[in-house]
Amino acid sequence: MLTLHIGNKNYSSWSMRPWVLMTQAGIAFDEVLLRFDSFDPDSQFKRQAMALSPSGTVPVLVDGDLVVWDTLAIAEYLAERFPDRALWPQAVEARALARSVCAHMHSGFGALRQHFPMNIDATLPEVGARVLREQPAVVDDLQRLQALWERLLARHDGPLLFDPFSIADAFFAPVVMRLKTYAVPVSPRVQRYMEAVLALQGVQQWVAGALAEHDFRPFEEPYRQAPDARDDGE
Amino acid sequence: MLTLHIGNKNYSSWSMRPWVLMTQAGIAFDEVLLRFDSFDPDSQFKRQAMALSPSGTVPVLVDGDLVVWDTLAIAEYLAERFPDRALWPQAVEARALARSVCAHMHSGFGALRQHFPMNIDATLPEVGARVLREQPAVVDDLQRLQALWERLLARHDGPLLFDPFSIADAFFAPVVMRLKTYAVPVSPRVQRYMEAVLALQGVQQWVAGALAEHDFRPFEEPYRQAPDARDDGE
Ligand SMILES: N[C@@H](CCC(=O)N[C@@H](CS)C(=O)NCC(=O)O)C(=O)O
Ligand SMILES: N[C@@H](CCC(=O)N[C@@H](CS)C(=O)NCC(=O)O)C(=O)O
Repeated sequence: MLTLHIGNKNYSSWSMRPWVLMTQAGIAFDEVLLRFDSFDPDSQFKRQAMALSPSGTVPVLVDGDLVVWDTLAIAEYLAERFPDRALWPQAVEARALARSVCAHMHSGFGALRQHFPMNIDATLPEVGARVLREQPAVVDDLQRLQALWERLLARHDGPLLFDPFSIADAFFAPVVMRLKTYAVPVSPRVQRYMEAVLALQGVQQWVAGALAEHDFRPFEEPYRQAPDARDDGE
Repeated sequence: MLTLHIGNKNYSSWSMRPWVLMTQAGIAFDEVLLRFDSFDPDSQFKRQAMALSPSGTVPVLVDGDLVVWDTLAIAEYLAERFPDRALWPQAVEARALARSVCAHMHSGFGALRQHFPMNIDATLPEVGARVLREQPAVVDDLQRLQALWERLLARHDGPLLFDPFSIADAFFAPVVMRLKTYAVPVSPRVQRYMEAVLALQGVQQWVAGALAEHDFRPFEEPYRQAPDARDDGE
């Protein structure tokens, strides 16, 4: 049986990727949540995470004796272990392209990641507008990101980056959540892509989990003093 | 025919990875060097790199119509295209582990990368000692890195991270160059690993190219005003 160790669903953008991937692809797994207290070396989270893997980060996938850490390694491992699920696109060119964009996401878009931390529970359009005014590096990242998506979507006329669902959509799902939280203006094609991602059942289940968490972590909240007053039924 | 677009050999740590990988594995390719002038959006380098791929970074691998960017995507692409070269370890567990450490390197060790930029031509032991005194985050990165290597080397008693040469060694080759330039103290086992990497003919050829470059790029030189006075015969 596979076990995926993750962080808080509301905040942990990296954990979301393999969780959405496996859920959407119908791969069964157990989930263990390592609650974020802080990322200090002596925090409970960090001690637990360091006991699991040398990176001391989540996600970590455990498969029997085997420990796989880092989202990209987990994605490749799953793609090999479950060939029938076609987690990468099947055509050689599409697969190379999908790997390029995932690796690009893995190491890039630093300004976007820094200034727009994932926070599924939050609705922060004013913060979004202010960051876009004050942080040109975020605007650059968003332009590059949207250009990349547009280019991929134009290859086969959407709705997902490749056809069908692939690791690439799982890799960008947390980015979609950020664009939503910070109400970033997007083109119609990108809007349709966001809606398609938000409609994936793997994404919907993660989001439901995040909204049910009610676990406000101040160190992950640069922009809020307290949780949004939110109708839980929404 | 494959074409690999790279940056200056003395400085471009990311370019070094697939170049060493292909050379060491005996995969033929043409090389195109995009000289670093600067990374400003209107630099010649950046305009050329943006014309090649959406990331505007090197390395970029071109294979006919196919453009693969980012080191990790290039490595996976090559592993699939040349299965007989066994670029990843063949055993499932070793392969999952190798992918984990490469992905970890790809997105981690930020303090080490920032304070010890690759500079093959330079010999900077005083800078190394000063950085180790002043930057605890670099010391942390080095401890984690050495613990990771020790653990992998102990699995099969070296000399390389897995047996035989794999993508993992290509991924850490630029790190070995940094430890050498900044004369970082290491354990005997790590010392043997560094020597094994430096002895790889793929690494030796890259280093020879870097030393022959004589192309001092001030924006890549936080620590030197001018190239080292160096005996070219060495
Ligand atoms: N490159 C890693 C990044 C993982 C990561 O940074 N995860 C965060 C949580 S979303 C974490 O564990 N942070 C702890 C820390 O930075 O100490 C991956 O792709 O899995
Ligand atoms: N994640 C990329 C990183 C590539 C990268 O940053 N390359 C540097 C040269 S070593 C570059 O092109 N920098 C240009 C820039 O940052 O604008 C990869 O693994 O290929």
